[in-house]
Amino acid sequence: MEFVKQIHFLFIFASFVLKLVSAERSTYIVHMDKSFMPKAFVSHQHWYTNTLNSLKFTSPNSDQQKQPLELLYTYDNVFHGFSAALSNSELEAVKKLPGFVSACSDKVGTLDTTHSTDFLSLNPVTGLWPASDYGKDVVIGVLDTGVWPESLSYKDDGLTEIPSRWKGKCDGGYDFNSSLCNKKLIGARYFNKGLLAANPDEKGKKYSARDHDGHGTHTSSTAAGNYVEDVSFFGYAKGTARGVAPRARLAIYKASFRSGRYASDVLAALDQAVADGVDVISISMGFNSIPFYEDPIAIASFAAIEKGVFVSTSAGNSGATPRRLHNGIPWVLTVAAGSMDRSFGGSITLGNGLTIHGWSLFPAKAVVRDSTLIYNKTIAACNSTELLSELPGGSTIICDYNTYSFDVDTQIFYVSQSNIGAAIFITSVYFYDESTFQYPGVIITPDKAAKVINYASKDVNPTVTINFQHTFLGQKPAPKLAEYSRLGPSPTYRGIVKPDIMAPGTLVLAAWIPNAAVSRIGNNIHLSNSDDFNLISGTSMACPHAAGIAALLKGAHPEWSPAAIRSAMITTANPFDNTGNPIQFVDIDAAASPLAIGGGQVDPNSALDPGLIYDATAQDYIELLCSINYTREQIFTITRSSYNCSKTYSDLNHPSFMFLYPSGTNVSSQTFKRTVTNVGDGAATYKAKVIAPKGSVITVYPKTLVFRHKYDKQSYSLTIHYVEDENNQVSIGSVIWVEDNGNHRVRSPIAFFQGEISD
Amino acid sequence: MEFVKQIHFLFIFASFVLKLVSAERSTYIVHMDKSFMPKAFVSHQHWYTNTLNSLKFTSPNSDQQKQPLELLYTYDNVFHGFSAALSNSELEAVKKLPGFVSACSDKVGTLDTTHSTDFLSLNPVTGLWPASDYGKDVVIGVLDTGVWPESLSYKDDGLTEIPSRWKGKCDGGYDFNSSLCNKKLIGARYFNKGLLAANPDEKGKKYSARDHDGHGTHTSSTAAGNYVEDVSFFGYAKGTARGVAPRARLAIYKASFRSGRYASDVLAALDQAVADGVDVISISMGFNSIPFYEDPIAIASFAAIEKGVFVSTSAGNSGATPRRLHNGIPWVLTVAAGSMDRSFGGSITLGNGLTIHGWSLFPAKAVVRDSTLIYNKTIAACNSTELLSELPGGSTIICDYNTYSFDVDTQIFYVSQSNIGAAIFITSVYFYDESTFQYPGVIITPDKAAKVINYASKDVNPTVTINFQHTFLGQKPAPKLAEYSRLGPSPTYRGIVKPDIMAPGTLVLAAWIPNAAVSRIGNNIHLSNSDDFNLISGTSMACPHAAGIAALLKGAHPEWSPAAIRSAMITTANPFDNTGNPIQFVDIDAAASPLAIGGGQVDPNSALDPGLIYDATAQDYIELLCSINYTREQIFTITRSSYNCSKTYSDLNHPSFMFLYPSGTNVSSQTFKRTVTNVGDGAATYKAKVIAPKGSVITVYPKTLVFRHKYDKQSYSLTIHYVEDENNQVSIGSVIWVEDNGNHRVRSPIAFFQGEISD
Repeated sequence: MEFVKQIHFLFIFASFVLKLVSAERSTYIVHMDKSFMPKAFVSHQHWYTNTLNSLKFTSPNSDQQKQPLELLYTYDNVFHGFSAALSNSELEAVKKLPGFVSACSDKVGTLDTTHSTDFLSLNPVTGLWPASDYGKDVVIGVLDTGVWPESLSYKDDGLTEIPSRWKGKCDGGYDFNSSLCNKKLIGARYFNKGLLAANPDEKGKKYSARDHDGHGTHTSSTAAGNYVEDVSFFGYAKGTARGVAPRARLAIYKASFRSGRYASDVLAALDQAVADGVDVISISMGFNSIPFYEDPIAIASFAAIEKGVFVSTSAGNSGATPRRLHNGIPWVLTVAAGSMDRSFGGSITLGNGLTIHGWSLFPAKAVVRDSTLIYNKTIAACNSTELLSELPGGSTIICDYNTYSFDVDTQIFYVSQSNIGAAIFITSVYFYDESTFQYPGVIITPDKAAKVINYASKDVNPTVTINFQHTFLGQKPAPKLAEYSRLGPSPTYRGIVKPDIMAPGTLVLAAWIPNAAVSRIGNNIHLSNSDDFNLISGTSMACPHAAGIAALLKGAHPEWSPAAIRSAMITTANPFDNTGNPIQFVDIDAAASPLAIGGGQVDPNSALDPGLIYDATAQDYIELLCSINYTREQIFTITRSSYNCSKTYSDLNHPSFMFLYPSGTNVSSQTFKRTVTNVGDGAATYKAKVIAPKGSVITVYPKTLVFRHKYDKQSYSLTIHYVEDENNQVSIGSVIWVEDNGNHRVRSPIAFFQGEISD
Repeated sequence: MEFVKQIHFLFIFASFVLKLVSAERSTYIVHMDKSFMPKAFVSHQHWYTNTLNSLKFTSPNSDQQKQPLELLYTYDNVFHGFSAALSNSELEAVKKLPGFVSACSDKVGTLDTTHSTDFLSLNPVTGLWPASDYGKDVVIGVLDTGVWPESLSYKDDGLTEIPSRWKGKCDGGYDFNSSLCNKKLIGARYFNKGLLAANPDEKGKKYSARDHDGHGTHTSSTAAGNYVEDVSFFGYAKGTARGVAPRARLAIYKASFRSGRYASDVLAALDQAVADGVDVISISMGFNSIPFYEDPIAIASFAAIEKGVFVSTSAGNSGATPRRLHNGIPWVLTVAAGSMDRSFGGSITLGNGLTIHGWSLFPAKAVVRDSTLIYNKTIAACNSTELLSELPGGSTIICDYNTYSFDVDTQIFYVSQSNIGAAIFITSVYFYDESTFQYPGVIITPDKAAKVINYASKDVNPTVTINFQHTFLGQKPAPKLAEYSRLGPSPTYRGIVKPDIMAPGTLVLAAWIPNAAVSRIGNNIHLSNSDDFNLISGTSMACPHAAGIAALLKGAHPEWSPAAIRSAMITTANPFDNTGNPIQFVDIDAAASPLAIGGGQVDPNSALDPGLIYDATAQDYIELLCSINYTREQIFTITRSSYNCSKTYSDLNHPSFMFLYPSGTNVSSQTFKRTVTNVGDGAATYKAKVIAPKGSVITVYPKTLVFRHKYDKQSYSLTIHYVEDENNQVSIGSVIWVEDNGNHRVRSPIAFFQGEISD
């Protein structure tokens, strides 16, 4: 008993000291070679614990050694090793341990928070939904900010028993009873040790898998939320909400907290997800500009794909490093974000009967009926409180043409402070990804505005009636590439076309945490949506769409590898919008290259039956890693097991072609080799169709591929001869294998980029 | 052909002239004695038309005679006669016609627009709902502003075929296709000829039974709306909406328009309703301070009750003549309005954890979280834009104690113009019947405010979190008499206790027309409720509650007369609130007398089984009319058929006692006689229990009533001896017949009033 008491005291004292001095330590993720583990140890945990304890005794004079080392996590699935808070001297000691591979300091990831939609042609009659039984029994693991389990999106109505192979758990925690899980939400865990190690002040707080942000609830419900009827965002986007794979299961891995997203926690989460038996992982976050061997997502996802687990990631939103994507990892799917064919707004009906539609997301059913319409050149800049205050309360003002979207923001601010009842804003610039729209106003384009101004100027008693909460479908052109979606290639590695595909990411409606401010009226009245759904934009929203589609494909084709699933998504993606033209940027009149949209907009029903597949194995990725200027330890950090660099091969069997040309040389060429597998039913003959961009000549050999049976493989080579374009613009090309009977078109984008393999 | 053309031309010309000069005519309602109709005429219409045509030729020199007389309506059910636009000379001529009884000029009624609830104990297990099968096949006619037929309250889900006895119709009209009626909404008609005659400018407008106000949609859905799930008023009062008699049928008689409510139209509507075969009529309007023989509701309802049709009317809201009720008609039910045990508001949670509830109806889910709480004596009057503008945006201000509710209104106006995020208002005065609440604020009482002010003054960093959209049930005391509910007795006739009962009228949620402004944010942003339901208050809302209950009683007891139904409602009404004390006024600490609430709060389940009934027939009402100082013609106007005033009897067999005592006399007495019918099952013995107010002695003879069989009748007398109270206050008394086995308590209120029988 005395001994126990002493131990207990020691622990309390140690925690106390730790709190005082742990700032001098910082968290490291240590990769170990498990083959070095002495046979005496029954488990890797045992080995790591003993190893760290041994450190305590090797330098007894150090102050730091008075506190026990804090082992945060041990990892055994996505890689072998552990994370621990280490001082510099401790780190040096760790590095000398037998079996040590590498160590890197913990990192903070960035969350891709912006917006998404339903724009995919999934339907209950044909294609991927019925073929996959809506993703039944496929498990999607979502690494994010947690989950609001009470959200209606996680009801398990209509779901069968949890597959017996599932090894995951529902971890209880603060304000999160493990009974909250059900047949839809089959797992919920949280990983905060890295966070706590880096932020000792956080230790007093209470943790669980509960989402206090909304982001994780949004992404997971987008991937696989159940049907929720009659929801909307303040009356906009009204209808039945559902995830892409409404019958798939969700397992939540919370590793993203208000205070940060730590690599050690992300690794632990992914390690657990793979151990639990997820089929697909969705990661709407990324770590910027770091090599693969330091990127927890790259490391963990390598192990995941080795075990057949598909990983979908987001390309990233504009931020500190705009338009340079993250997650440009050869073995994951990297998803860009696009708009849809949906718009929100108000209808303006003038006293003369003319009706005009414009943009609005004013978050209430405002009543503007037969309001006096004012157009006055002196006031129309709408940027003077004094001038605006002279107008009669309840009238509607026309605010003049704006060149920049922030001008509209300013005008909205000023009219919000006035007594005017409503406003019509005029701008031709792209407007609006954000869902906050604080004033009963409508934004219209200058061509429509001319009629409104003419009426307001000439009519004796001009009036206007405005109706809000309109949702307009069938907008053209759509999709467009979102202005926030980061462009490839990856600064880390440019040898592969990234992003892989585009999916809906702008103004996506999905579940949200309750009582959170998601819109505003006036300058200070913040509102939450009583439906507990939110309309947001970002590659974060595109990523779970792709994850949901991958889950459906996994359900329909359980035998497909992650690379096969990705290939099917890329080669069947649509590079054209709904007007038949190449997909454009949303904010500029220019076509988006493969380095912006990969293969194009994902097309789930086509991906179900791609015809040919570009497959790849872990060995292919190892050969690619061997081709990079990495050390043996850096590569081992990713592969976790002995590997052989006798063969290096940078030309990954990926369904796209990345043509890098050096600057200063005006002629260059490169030959690629690809192997395709026939996944159509029976014999098939394909012929190559090449679209070569200006200044290039592209040849394919052979030009015809004949497959005698299903699963037959055929190889071909593709050679690009390129004379640099005068304007030095990235050009767009593609090769399409068209089946003779016209049943399948297997398209690979060809991207051109002037630069080296990495920064 | 030539003849037809001339006629046609004549009509066009006549219409034209009529438009020019009709202002010189005005509408009269003419009552005729049908027994004078010459046998040569096949119908009353034929007679009236001929009679009016004859007028044209009797004074050929008059200018007026050049246009044909405009016969607006002929009436044949609730009375015999017609309405027509007549000049003075024409009126004089009409008065000389054989069979002429009386004529009065058309009048404009007032609508009781304010609010209502679910506070009645109706339930699917026991009592009136199951006993009446929810009013199945009972038809309620609603005289009001029309109906919005697309409202979900008029769905006919769950309703059986329309009873074959129904003779009503669904009249098509502007924006109203007759196919809009169904098994719930079985009739819709509109009556606007009186309106058009009085307002020739309106003739170009298009009419139908469609409701453009909301009032009629609200009252009819309150009486018999079908179940509508998950509706609310901007998040308040959330739940399933339903009418009092959710399986009853509705027939709509629109006689109330934006431009007015004309007696001629009201009469035509009620005439038609009786002809169509309605069982209950609900009239949430009234005509102020007119004798019964000029009051279209009194006239029409006399015929209605003769035919067994129950009529429910509203007592009226405070207005030009506050607290002097209308519809004080001996043969109808006159309904006062009360509050319920429901309150709406917000919860204030201080940074120290204290949570306080207050009043609010802010119409959005405002998010006020950890907002800086400011209490500053200099600013706390919250009536200076300058001072308020100095506060940090997003903070929450405490606005000081207010003596008058309009002070709070003023403060709300000022904070609405500021950048402050929220406000806490303090007042002890009664607040609030109106549902407009334009700012994220909460109103609390001074006792609660002390804690808030203390915290805000003393804490270093005071913060507050406010949640809106709370609905608090079980509030005490409830019900209270609404401050707007007009008090009896009727200025027209004081010989009877009016109102008869009280029903929920304050803040009632029921269907409304879409896209109508029903709330506001800030000073200029008007909102409509996307649920198309509105929360309003008034005796207009109480009246259809009573009509719905009458319909249920009619369904359960088809054999009961209108007087029997009314008796059951009065004698079982509850004079006590949910604290067991007499029902009080909502705005002052005083008990409400029978002249405010009649028998008390209607109790539908008790009314199902009242034990004894005070019945009355049309003959009883005629004898009462004979006792009033009316001329023969005036009485005939109401009775429409020959009657006999050989017996005059002012002591109507009504289940209440009205003791009028003259001023200046300090002692008076009166003896009343009543006859009760045993409607309980089999033999019963009742004993009288008298509650005599201060200064009075009340004796009942006999003190015991023994009934041998069901339907046995017994009479008793009640004598009041009264010595005037020093304070000259109206006192409250009652007589209760209590069944020996305790199964039934039959209570009659006794009202005391100093004054004459009429003004």
